[in-house]
Amino acid sequence: MPPDTAAPPEAGAPARVSWLRRLAPLVLVCGLLCGGSAGALAAGAPAPEAVAAQLRDAAMAGHDIAYAWVSELTTRFGPRPAGSPGEQQAAEWAAARLKALGFDNVHLESFPITAWVRGSESAQIIAPGTQPLVIAALGESPPTPPAGLDGDVVLFATLSDLKAATPGALTGKIALVTQRMVRTQDGAGYSAAVQARTDGPQEAAQRGAIAFLLRSVGTDSHRLAHTGTTRYVDGRVPVPAFALSGPDADQIERIAALGQKVRVHLFSSASYLPNAHSQNVIADVRGRERPQEVVLLGAHLDSWDQGTGAIDDAAGTAIVTAAATLIRNLPHKPRRTVRVVLFGSEEVSQPLPPEGDFGGHAYVRNHRAELADHVLAGESDFGTDRVFACALPAAVISSEFARTLLRVLTPIGVLAADHPPVEAGADVAPAIEGGVPAFLLSQDGTHYFDIHHTPDDTLDKVDRAQLDQNVAAWTALAWLAADSDVDFRTHAATPPAPGP
Amino acid sequence: MPPDTAAPPEAGAPARVSWLRRLAPLVLVCGLLCGGSAGALAAGAPAPEAVAAQLRDAAMAGHDIAYAWVSELTTRFGPRPAGSPGEQQAAEWAAARLKALGFDNVHLESFPITAWVRGSESAQIIAPGTQPLVIAALGESPPTPPAGLDGDVVLFATLSDLKAATPGALTGKIALVTQRMVRTQDGAGYSAAVQARTDGPQEAAQRGAIAFLLRSVGTDSHRLAHTGTTRYVDGRVPVPAFALSGPDADQIERIAALGQKVRVHLFSSASYLPNAHSQNVIADVRGRERPQEVVLLGAHLDSWDQGTGAIDDAAGTAIVTAAATLIRNLPHKPRRTVRVVLFGSEEVSQPLPPEGDFGGHAYVRNHRAELADHVLAGESDFGTDRVFACALPAAVISSEFARTLLRVLTPIGVLAADHPPVEAGADVAPAIEGGVPAFLLSQDGTHYFDIHHTPDDTLDKVDRAQLDQNVAAWTALAWLAADSDVDFRTHAATPPAPGP
Repeated sequence: MPPDTAAPPEAGAPARVSWLRRLAPLVLVCGLLCGGSAGALAAGAPAPEAVAAQLRDAAMAGHDIAYAWVSELTTRFGPRPAGSPGEQQAAEWAAARLKALGFDNVHLESFPITAWVRGSESAQIIAPGTQPLVIAALGESPPTPPAGLDGDVVLFATLSDLKAATPGALTGKIALVTQRMVRTQDGAGYSAAVQARTDGPQEAAQRGAIAFLLRSVGTDSHRLAHTGTTRYVDGRVPVPAFALSGPDADQIERIAALGQKVRVHLFSSASYLPNAHSQNVIADVRGRERPQEVVLLGAHLDSWDQGTGAIDDAAGTAIVTAAATLIRNLPHKPRRTVRVVLFGSEEVSQPLPPEGDFGGHAYVRNHRAELADHVLAGESDFGTDRVFACALPAAVISSEFARTLLRVLTPIGVLAADHPPVEAGADVAPAIEGGVPAFLLSQDGTHYFDIHHTPDDTLDKVDRAQLDQNVAAWTALAWLAADSDVDFRTHAATPPAPGP
Repeated sequence: MPPDTAAPPEAGAPARVSWLRRLAPLVLVCGLLCGGSAGALAAGAPAPEAVAAQLRDAAMAGHDIAYAWVSELTTRFGPRPAGSPGEQQAAEWAAARLKALGFDNVHLESFPITAWVRGSESAQIIAPGTQPLVIAALGESPPTPPAGLDGDVVLFATLSDLKAATPGALTGKIALVTQRMVRTQDGAGYSAAVQARTDGPQEAAQRGAIAFLLRSVGTDSHRLAHTGTTRYVDGRVPVPAFALSGPDADQIERIAALGQKVRVHLFSSASYLPNAHSQNVIADVRGRERPQEVVLLGAHLDSWDQGTGAIDDAAGTAIVTAAATLIRNLPHKPRRTVRVVLFGSEEVSQPLPPEGDFGGHAYVRNHRAELADHVLAGESDFGTDRVFACALPAAVISSEFARTLLRVLTPIGVLAADHPPVEAGADVAPAIEGGVPAFLLSQDGTHYFDIHHTPDDTLDKVDRAQLDQNVAAWTALAWLAADSDVDFRTHAATPPAPGP
């Protein structure tokens, strides 16, 4: 039994917990502040599990931190594309807020990027007849010629079908991949569909295409196109590349099914901002015993440019900030440091070798020497729907730590995942590749891809109750990990019994 | 008891109905064609109520006419704004299809209009910070100056609040009415909110405003703006006028609530097409006994320009065409003529005296002498959601005709309305004002204004089962009215008992 759950609750704790649960969060925090002090901890502090339950309940009862954060961030700055004034101003605002909330070590870490900028863009069917199309240039897509470009559309049901076309088969044509994303809870449908977006432009270009279109990687049926990055080859995306809204892709498919050739006009004035930079925002709740050991809570401040990035990922920054703030406001800090990192430039991976550069890389460059002391890392970047599962590093998946955590999370509808995280977020991926153990609080993504990367990513899509449930899960997990001395890399774990 | 329901079903009818209900619609039609002839009607034709039930069941079983119509119309021609080539080509296509379906008297009736054309348009918040806004110019809105216009936004919670502002209070400003439309089943929320759209521009202009904005008259929360006409004064709309998407109106309200002045840039290159014309499409199922007496089924072929007008109103044209086609395919025609009128230029009332001109006016001008023989008129122009109530002219509201009709419609979920139609559709309004009795098959409009007048009005929003239920209700009603000799103007009706 690890030390973090070894001590039984002292005699007075249960009554105090009951009393606290009946009170508003502010009273909770005040009560803890008034009732305890660092000197009294050894004798009088409630057990970590009881504190985790209190934090959970305070978050679930609703508090202003998370919603006020996502509301003000998206209202004041609107879209925050990487390298934009909006992203920088948002970072400065976030740092000021984190200082005001009492965080330690609050600072920005700037890094250069080559910022892609959407220009004007438009598209029309020009034969048979004329009909407007709703499109969005993919991130990194080069502009069209100033007068636009025209081409006959060649439809492919899947990326594989496009790859099966012979070299030269698309000379002078516009390739369109019409594959539909499958709606799933865990985002598996996105992973299956997104390869057409990342690899389609180069595959089309290799076969002579002058432009690439795909049905938006999304699950809605609105006249809103889902943008997203695409892969560059030799430092650039080889042809202009656009997502069509679902209904527009439907329309082209139906016209083609009537036996008619579809010809399309495309225009984009996309460009790059020279000498741009982005920045990560760092803020700590300094640990009381082993401050050099860090539990990293990540999210990203930048957003796509069409919406205000409310669910992607202002909400994530709100969740991790609110969770850490609840811990910050406890009368005794956790043993380890809880670090909030609000990453910059997550959405648009940049055309720098070897495979792009973004906030996650910059963080690892700046903190490589500290990574060995990063005990655990996770990221909130999947909207605001409820957390339904918790995945822990393999080393602790069957530990007392996991059992304690699940006792705290089960009442708010969180299951134990049966495997460690496959991925835990793009921004923390470089740290995880650098050896930092990862956790994942899996959110329900059933509806996430209705909104993801569209103009519709705005504050009205944030559900306050579900946002609060996220904060509850994050604060409980972060507290238990930070107040423990569990080694998430090598914890002697009992392997789970084999399944049936 | 009116003659149309006086005859009891002949002995063989029930078995035949049962047999027919088990068969596909084509077989039904074939069965009726094979089983009856004009000469056998007096002796062997099933009672009108039985035929109505057969028509209803054939429609409910699903047939291709309505969905194929709405699909092909919206796919081939896309948006069909009044006076556009798309509207004209759609009318020519519809006439050809109606001829192919065997309708009589198929022809176009052209009329001149002054066609408004949306140009390019864009809007941004320019202070504090810059943020893009999703807007749509209101129909008839004049363009901005070529460089656009800038102004501080003055917010009004309602049109009444705007009207309470003093003359000159808005000099150089942009007025914004932020009133939210209430979601209702019957469209009452639209009627309550739309006055801000029709009257807002002139009220703002009278107080010195340089432009007018309103929160879209709609019930969704997507980044899609709802267009619609606005009222012109002395032959024009006095200032450029735009709808904001709901989330964009939210955003401006929130920025203002932070205590910041919101300044906006607006641009529109709207214009008028000179020498434009629109056209109504007429097609009859000629009555076998009193062909001069007409039951008019209306809908409109034109649409707004942002979507493809699938629910507004390609679906309506599909519903009335399919309903009339089922009647057309019966072995014996109804006594009276069933006339389908697919109106042109419904959406944009035109700046001609005294209050605009559209297909409904043109029809009355061309058919004024026949209106006394128009026994009943209705219009399908409220989307594709199910019909839930049927309103009949006051004269027949408690008649045997009404009881017969309700026996046929109750099994498909249609109630009797407790009052005659307040309005029955914009296109048939001039005929109704000219004395033609009106019916209304009320559709469930709970979700209609999520889509109405937005780019999202596309085929994917059409529910085939609900479309079929509409056809069922329309064909049953049209058949019973046309095969009767009920006088819907003066039918001696028993007044309903007073309610509790």
